[in-house]
Amino acid sequence: MNLSIIIIGDEILLGGVTDTNSGLIARKFTADGWQVRRIRTVADKAADIEAAICESLDESELVITTGGLGPTRDDITKAVLTRVFGGRIAGNAAVLANVERIFAERGLELNDLTRSQALVPDSCRVIQNRYGTAPLMWFEKEGRVLVAMPGVPFETRGMLDEVASAVYGRFGHGGFAAHREFTVCGICESALAERLAGFEDRLPANYKLAYLPNPGEIVMRLDADFSSCPSEAAHFEDYAAVLVKALGEYLVGCGKLTPAELALAKLRRHGYRMATAESCTGGNIAHLITSIAGCSDVMLGGVVSYCNDVKMRVLEVSADTLSHYGAVSEGTVRQMAEGVCRLLGADCAVATSGIAGPGGAVPGKPVGTVWIAAVTPEGSRAECCHFRGDRQSVIDRASARALTMLADML
Amino acid sequence: MNLSIIIIGDEILLGGVTDTNSGLIARKFTADGWQVRRIRTVADKAADIEAAICESLDESELVITTGGLGPTRDDITKAVLTRVFGGRIAGNAAVLANVERIFAERGLELNDLTRSQALVPDSCRVIQNRYGTAPLMWFEKEGRVLVAMPGVPFETRGMLDEVASAVYGRFGHGGFAAHREFTVCGICESALAERLAGFEDRLPANYKLAYLPNPGEIVMRLDADFSSCPSEAAHFEDYAAVLVKALGEYLVGCGKLTPAELALAKLRRHGYRMATAESCTGGNIAHLITSIAGCSDVMLGGVVSYCNDVKMRVLEVSADTLSHYGAVSEGTVRQMAEGVCRLLGADCAVATSGIAGPGGAVPGKPVGTVWIAAVTPEGSRAECCHFRGDRQSVIDRASARALTMLADML
Repeated sequence: MNLSIIIIGDEILLGGVTDTNSGLIARKFTADGWQVRRIRTVADKAADIEAAICESLDESELVITTGGLGPTRDDITKAVLTRVFGGRIAGNAAVLANVERIFAERGLELNDLTRSQALVPDSCRVIQNRYGTAPLMWFEKEGRVLVAMPGVPFETRGMLDEVASAVYGRFGHGGFAAHREFTVCGICESALAERLAGFEDRLPANYKLAYLPNPGEIVMRLDADFSSCPSEAAHFEDYAAVLVKALGEYLVGCGKLTPAELALAKLRRHGYRMATAESCTGGNIAHLITSIAGCSDVMLGGVVSYCNDVKMRVLEVSADTLSHYGAVSEGTVRQMAEGVCRLLGADCAVATSGIAGPGGAVPGKPVGTVWIAAVTPEGSRAECCHFRGDRQSVIDRASARALTMLADML
Repeated sequence: MNLSIIIIGDEILLGGVTDTNSGLIARKFTADGWQVRRIRTVADKAADIEAAICESLDESELVITTGGLGPTRDDITKAVLTRVFGGRIAGNAAVLANVERIFAERGLELNDLTRSQALVPDSCRVIQNRYGTAPLMWFEKEGRVLVAMPGVPFETRGMLDEVASAVYGRFGHGGFAAHREFTVCGICESALAERLAGFEDRLPANYKLAYLPNPGEIVMRLDADFSSCPSEAAHFEDYAAVLVKALGEYLVGCGKLTPAELALAKLRRHGYRMATAESCTGGNIAHLITSIAGCSDVMLGGVVSYCNDVKMRVLEVSADTLSHYGAVSEGTVRQMAEGVCRLLGADCAVATSGIAGPGGAVPGKPVGTVWIAAVTPEGSRAECCHFRGDRQSVIDRASARALTMLADML
């Protein structure tokens, strides 16, 4: 089934804010077999919002809008929705109670502007926003559904599962297809196939289980095609749950894990604790790891050594290595990784030193040259990489490569 | 004048990749007085691309597309462009030379797929891509312009100024308005007004200079309205250049600076060197600073202390403070900031310790509680903040607050 997404807000069209809501919504629904037809980003203008809604309802069974619901702007969006779906705007006691509760919790006084968030079209069903004051609104017309969500990313993130459940209750999953990925470590493909033989034997003919081996991990992909039996789509979650059970202790995560998630999962399986020693990546690797909730059983911390003095004094890189081979060298990153393990008492570490650019290139070491090292109790590895792109690209790619290298070694 | 943006690519509609190109293009052109009418994100499907192009040409003088030009997919986009703008697809010697040069530089062999990038509609003018193999294409029809840009973000970033210059050469700036911001530090508003009196006296009547004072900085905004004199828009850059000269040594940056850029600029003015000591922000503050090219004259490095043992052993936070007040306390962040200054030999530092969530809350310290400290040679400050939102929001907000606090103190 088709989904169209509408992002409402001048701030996106001005480029001041990057829209991440559409990607979040797209990932969620495409994983469950929906097809995203189009994303439309429009200004806080009634005519533009109305045009985008009508175009979207023409092409898709489901339309999700985000934004345009702030207390200063919701008049426009709500008026447009009333024009498209009928009804009139009226006070909603449940929404008012939610707004009052949130303001009481924050010790703030309610003003009229905020109280107006409790005015909603009576043609919609309200889904209470557990993360903010703007209510979510569910509209139906001629078999099509529009859900208006708030634009604040953490409110959208927080409410998405509830919206998806309501949509699946109404339409089923995407109806034609569903797929889900799982990341598995610590078992080879043939042993895994043996372990899953019983599960595969019992899979209906419209299901398919794929093995996608990568270095150090296997991504399992469960696909189902419901085009000839749409009513069976509701059972997809049951089969996914049986697969999760069958994968047992080898399952390290649902979905295809990021390099940081994969490294963290494998470290946790070994009971290892890690540290980072970063020069050119400047703290980004530590940031990627500590962005994962619950990482503190594995992550001890790290050192950003952005000058040679810190590399020598804090990480104990030898002055000889620095003067003979330079900061961007195999010896330097190996000593950085070993040094941070000693300093922080870690079992494993990654280290980076390179030239992120745009300046800093030296003969034989162009911008994008990065030495990366990883150490574990079983051994160490170092590699010289040449990344293309600008400063941000080099930082991102070097960070991902360092984490992948560590995960590969475990 | 109006601009519509089209983002082409299945990967965006699947949510696997976040589109940052549209924001980049929007910021550039809105700063020069253009209005972004709509952003359309469409799949790699000929019918969808064609519909988006026709809708965009209907509403805007300028249409910029990104993506859909990779060697495996460019047939679709180029065929659509030929259908809309006429002409036929033919080999272009200059593009082939560019592709051959890039492959030679990377030591790669050219295959037929890549060679096909040199096939372009003969109805366009080619703008050579200095960062990749896919050529940029400039089409005109009935007074409207479409520029097809590559989708790889660093290629778009790299080529944007050149595209904008070509557009301004054709249309002038946005025609109706232009505005540019500058961040100024180290001078009070009245002294600045005195300094700029001569500049302001000579400004034409359709120009306006605004002073927007914030704590520790003044943002200057130069606005011009060309609706009654479009031909004068070309002179906007000249006035901006005169203003830059008049601001002299007080100018710390063009545009409204991010907290990291502002802190870095003010540290540099003082000749101070800084360090970071991060717990709950986990390296993000160091990452924000080291993402700025040329930061190494100011940034020495930092420590991510994600466990109490590292706070004590590496940063010398006292065991007493940790056991009496906990890791999330004023004493802890003050000692972290002082400790990292000693360890790295820095003049200034910021430190954070808090509960980013979703777990980890303790009585009296709910998720979102973050203690932040900053130290400079002139003194120190500490503050307990309560941030709303999920883990990523808390990390982002605490990082920005720490950097703003440091900048305020300088």
